[in-house]
Amino acid sequence: MFEAVISAPEKGHLADYIPALANQSKNLFAVYIIDEKGEVLTFGDFKGVLTLQSISKVMSFIVAADSLGIDQVLEKVDVEPTGDPFNSIVRLEVAEKGKPFNPMINAGAITVASLLPGDTVEARVKSVTDFISQVTGREHSVNQEVFKSEMETAYRNRAIANYLKANDYLRGTVEEALETYLQLCSIELTTEDLARLGLFIATDGLLLTVTENKNLITRKTARYTKALMMTCGLYNASGKYAATIGIPMKSGVSGGVLCTVQNGQIEHLQGRMGIGVFSPMIDEIGNSVKGMDFLQRISEHYNLSVF
Amino acid sequence: MFEAVISAPEKGHLADYIPALANQSKNLFAVYIIDEKGEVLTFGDFKGVLTLQSISKVMSFIVAADSLGIDQVLEKVDVEPTGDPFNSIVRLEVAEKGKPFNPMINAGAITVASLLPGDTVEARVKSVTDFISQVTGREHSVNQEVFKSEMETAYRNRAIANYLKANDYLRGTVEEALETYLQLCSIELTTEDLARLGLFIATDGLLLTVTENKNLITRKTARYTKALMMTCGLYNASGKYAATIGIPMKSGVSGGVLCTVQNGQIEHLQGRMGIGVFSPMIDEIGNSVKGMDFLQRISEHYNLSVF
Amino acid sequence: MFEAVISAPEKGHLADYIPALANQSKNLFAVYIIDEKGEVLTFGDFKGVLTLQSISKVMSFIVAADSLGIDQVLEKVDVEPTGDPFNSIVRLEVAEKGKPFNPMINAGAITVASLLPGDTVEARVKSVTDFISQVTGREHSVNQEVFKSEMETAYRNRAIANYLKANDYLRGTVEEALETYLQLCSIELTTEDLARLGLFIATDGLLLTVTENKNLITRKTARYTKALMMTCGLYNASGKYAATIGIPMKSGVSGGVLCTVQNGQIEHLQGRMGIGVFSPMIDEIGNSVKGMDFLQRISEHYNLSVF
Amino acid sequence: MFEAVISAPEKGHLADYIPALANQSKNLFAVYIIDEKGEVLTFGDFKGVLTLQSISKVMSFIVAADSLGIDQVLEKVDVEPTGDPFNSIVRLEVAEKGKPFNPMINAGAITVASLLPGDTVEARVKSVTDFISQVTGREHSVNQEVFKSEMETAYRNRAIANYLKANDYLRGTVEEALETYLQLCSIELTTEDLARLGLFIATDGLLLTVTENKNLITRKTARYTKALMMTCGLYNASGKYAATIGIPMKSGVSGGVLCTVQNGQIEHLQGRMGIGVFSPMIDEIGNSVKGMDFLQRISEHYNLSVF
Repeated sequence: MFEAVISAPEKGHLADYIPALANQSKNLFAVYIIDEKGEVLTFGDFKGVLTLQSISKVMSFIVAADSLGIDQVLEKVDVEPTGDPFNSIVRLEVAEKGKPFNPMINAGAITVASLLPGDTVEARVKSVTDFISQVTGREHSVNQEVFKSEMETAYRNRAIANYLKANDYLRGTVEEALETYLQLCSIELTTEDLARLGLFIATDGLLLTVTENKNLITRKTARYTKALMMTCGLYNASGKYAATIGIPMKSGVSGGVLCTVQNGQIEHLQGRMGIGVFSPMIDEIGNSVKGMDFLQRISEHYNLSVF
Repeated sequence: MFEAVISAPEKGHLADYIPALANQSKNLFAVYIIDEKGEVLTFGDFKGVLTLQSISKVMSFIVAADSLGIDQVLEKVDVEPTGDPFNSIVRLEVAEKGKPFNPMINAGAITVASLLPGDTVEARVKSVTDFISQVTGREHSVNQEVFKSEMETAYRNRAIANYLKANDYLRGTVEEALETYLQLCSIELTTEDLARLGLFIATDGLLLTVTENKNLITRKTARYTKALMMTCGLYNASGKYAATIGIPMKSGVSGGVLCTVQNGQIEHLQGRMGIGVFSPMIDEIGNSVKGMDFLQRISEHYNLSVF
Repeated sequence: MFEAVISAPEKGHLADYIPALANQSKNLFAVYIIDEKGEVLTFGDFKGVLTLQSISKVMSFIVAADSLGIDQVLEKVDVEPTGDPFNSIVRLEVAEKGKPFNPMINAGAITVASLLPGDTVEARVKSVTDFISQVTGREHSVNQEVFKSEMETAYRNRAIANYLKANDYLRGTVEEALETYLQLCSIELTTEDLARLGLFIATDGLLLTVTENKNLITRKTARYTKALMMTCGLYNASGKYAATIGIPMKSGVSGGVLCTVQNGQIEHLQGRMGIGVFSPMIDEIGNSVKGMDFLQRISEHYNLSVF
Repeated sequence: MFEAVISAPEKGHLADYIPALANQSKNLFAVYIIDEKGEVLTFGDFKGVLTLQSISKVMSFIVAADSLGIDQVLEKVDVEPTGDPFNSIVRLEVAEKGKPFNPMINAGAITVASLLPGDTVEARVKSVTDFISQVTGREHSVNQEVFKSEMETAYRNRAIANYLKANDYLRGTVEEALETYLQLCSIELTTEDLARLGLFIATDGLLLTVTENKNLITRKTARYTKALMMTCGLYNASGKYAATIGIPMKSGVSGGVLCTVQNGQIEHLQGRMGIGVFSPMIDEIGNSVKGMDFLQRISEHYNLSVF
């Protein structure tokens, strides 16, 4: 049924501002869906890894919120959506005091990266890779080539980070926050890993691999996370996709999308689900062209929208 | 259980920039909940009417989208949330071409008001009061005193409307669009009416009063409406309430809130529900203080959040 | 020596957003220079009239400042230059309190128009035409066709005026201020009249026609006027022309330019001078293409710059 | 006659955001005036040094313009005044392409610093200290303590520099441009040196110490410099002081002011003059309180304004 999407001619472009992403193959496609019983459905034949890019903003927020408490995080970053481009500086200066609007835009994510537990860049990055490993059941590491290529051209992000520091919204040094943020963007995983993270969020923090029913994160953290994904997860197209797809999602310019389904049925899968999507060609706004197309069709067909 | 909220000391302020609203009693409170079987639950003892104010933005959008088609409406207004104050002009000029961001901010709602069916202000206003009457089963009219007091001090809204006209986002004249918009803001109804409208949206357009199962609006219109309420329904606090309450809502500075519940159980009520809330004291952002407090508690207690 | 400028092929465009200006001949050219002894030098053969457009901002400021006192005017408008387009709204909202930056941009000029002496639009317009007549020695009237065509499409100016009113920077009603402003823009005069006004400002308020040496305006008003012309008189190119021409000037989209020379010698003319220039083709920024070209050459050749 | 200013109680504050400036004595005062014949007039008894701070923007511009040619510099920075705070980022993003508005705001000055001749920070700083030494006849060096304290807290400037780099308005690295800029800000000199620099600019590049009449800089560079000082030299108060003082000036937050007089008579001094002023208490905008007060009185008394 979704063959038409998968085999359609490639549209969009690769994320050319990150040199390491500009060279990959254009026609990769992979979808991995998993439900709370562990049932699995896949589409496409790509089995490799992608880097998290902006999807890492979700994981950083979860780790920071659960270690510090949401209220501490909210002192440094709001949770309000914004219609601005994802890396806007204007908004920082116009708004009172320069407080970043939400953890899903670069300014907010750089602030959150600085709040992660640990006193060094390594410790902060490890707090997130450890969390991801706990959910996926395997090790994750930073793609150093991608990280380095992002660091070399991070002028706008470094401008934002300095601006945040000037207004006292960063813990530690500017370079620590920036390096932490960009290392998190460069963590590698598969669509299976994305799906397991999506399911983890959908279940408010349960692990498939653990028999006892203990939520690893608070219900409050899970709710804030899903609300942020719904209202700000897809850059400037968040509102459109809330209407046409209607599930909490977060995309990255690597072409990945992380999705959570609160309740649904897709073939033999049922109840809460996580969906990991990957297709590297992105549109002007930064979302995977085929990925979003696929998600619109599957949401429509299986009536997945919360609305 | 909610007595503590209802009887708490009044906080916030009345909407003093609208003279007719600045004189009402501070301690009014009313909640009306109705489910898809017609079961009802109420709190508070206020039985009177309130004016829709910004809640009218929801009805205008439904009528315009269902008469013109969503795609026609989207040519003149986006559906992207924004972290800006509800009456910001800055955003219009900074964004390319001055297109209003969404129908829940004043700029977008003035544009939508100009797109309503009919060639006169009267006809356009009637298209909305007729729609509301169809849902509530009774007549609705414009409170002329409130309308006039708003017209007299509508400098910012008139600035916005002229700006939209200059950029070709208004049908007809500036004064027609402005008058239509402000008349819609001044439509009177009760919390029961709000609840019935909320239920109508929750059911994607079913009427309680009609036995046959025919949706009056398209599923697409209903979804866009709910997504807009979730992402932009509560001014600059939309993100916060998406996290803490988690249902599609729209508030007005008169102190009313319209809510839809997709699926829940509140005492003997079940399934899809509409909730109408009214308490006139509002906070800095424009939302009813007691109203939002009540909604946070009832959502928490009955687990109404979609997240 | 200036023949090359005058006979050069036409570049730029007519001010097409004002219907009445979009139809005139493209190749008109006129320059009138007069010194404090009444000696005259002219270039070009056009003898007709032009409308003041933005040049009227200078006259309004002089009349308002001299009747109210500069300090009263400064309570409602600053005198700081700005690099923004002449009709920007953004600046009004970003700056604290929405105070207009200076009387040479539309926002400031609309405020100043509302401060003119008199209780009606007619009286306020007359206060300025009377002032001009006193200087030029002949009657001046408003071109009603130009005025009407500007009123019909004045959406941005009306947006600005409503915004100013919302922030309490307008005296009287929005429509009065707007109508006064646009009538002033539509006052007709010749390049000789412009030159006499330029000389009047250069001499801090002396009249050629009067033998006794009595300044009609205060030295303070004259200085503020010249400083405003130098720092903000040519829209977004004020800085460039301060460097390359270096005399106080004010242009209008009708293609006119009013100039004052503090001290100089041009052929047989000496000392303080006024220059009136007219050529209707304007550049992207709004300044007369041939007019500015002529002024650069004459300033260079006769060393007229104050710098 | 100016005793009242000099002995008035101190108002304003020291530039506390630069630690090394926050500790100096409040009641220092020095004025040095020199004319083209070398005649001198002084006020106040302070003989020490100050750091250039923003006054260095004038020297950088002169050196860059004279070595590269004005047109090359104008490709990377405009010469248009702006009403924004001196370190605004907003303007960079709103304006097309992020081009800095003029060399007198931080963004423009950081760009100009990157264009100075030489391939290293040292060489670029030396190009400016050499120029200053040529004019003053003595060696100048960077106050390393001030430079270091500025580098440590340069978050906003580093944000601006990264933003400029992202938009391709910087030559070399961000850190080179920033370091060059802040070293230039920390060059030490006396009010006599400031006066000699002011005279040098007033005479379009003549040196008192040299008998032959050879201008060291082009007339074009001198004119652009004076126009920039007049339209943008005093931060957001440039327009006000153009009206009330009316000579090209540039101030710094160290409390210094550099002034040029094109033609005047002050006691036994005549013709072109330079004025150096120093008093460390500055107002909200960043200008020396006593310094500006003194300049307003002397300009008024000796009629120094070009208007």
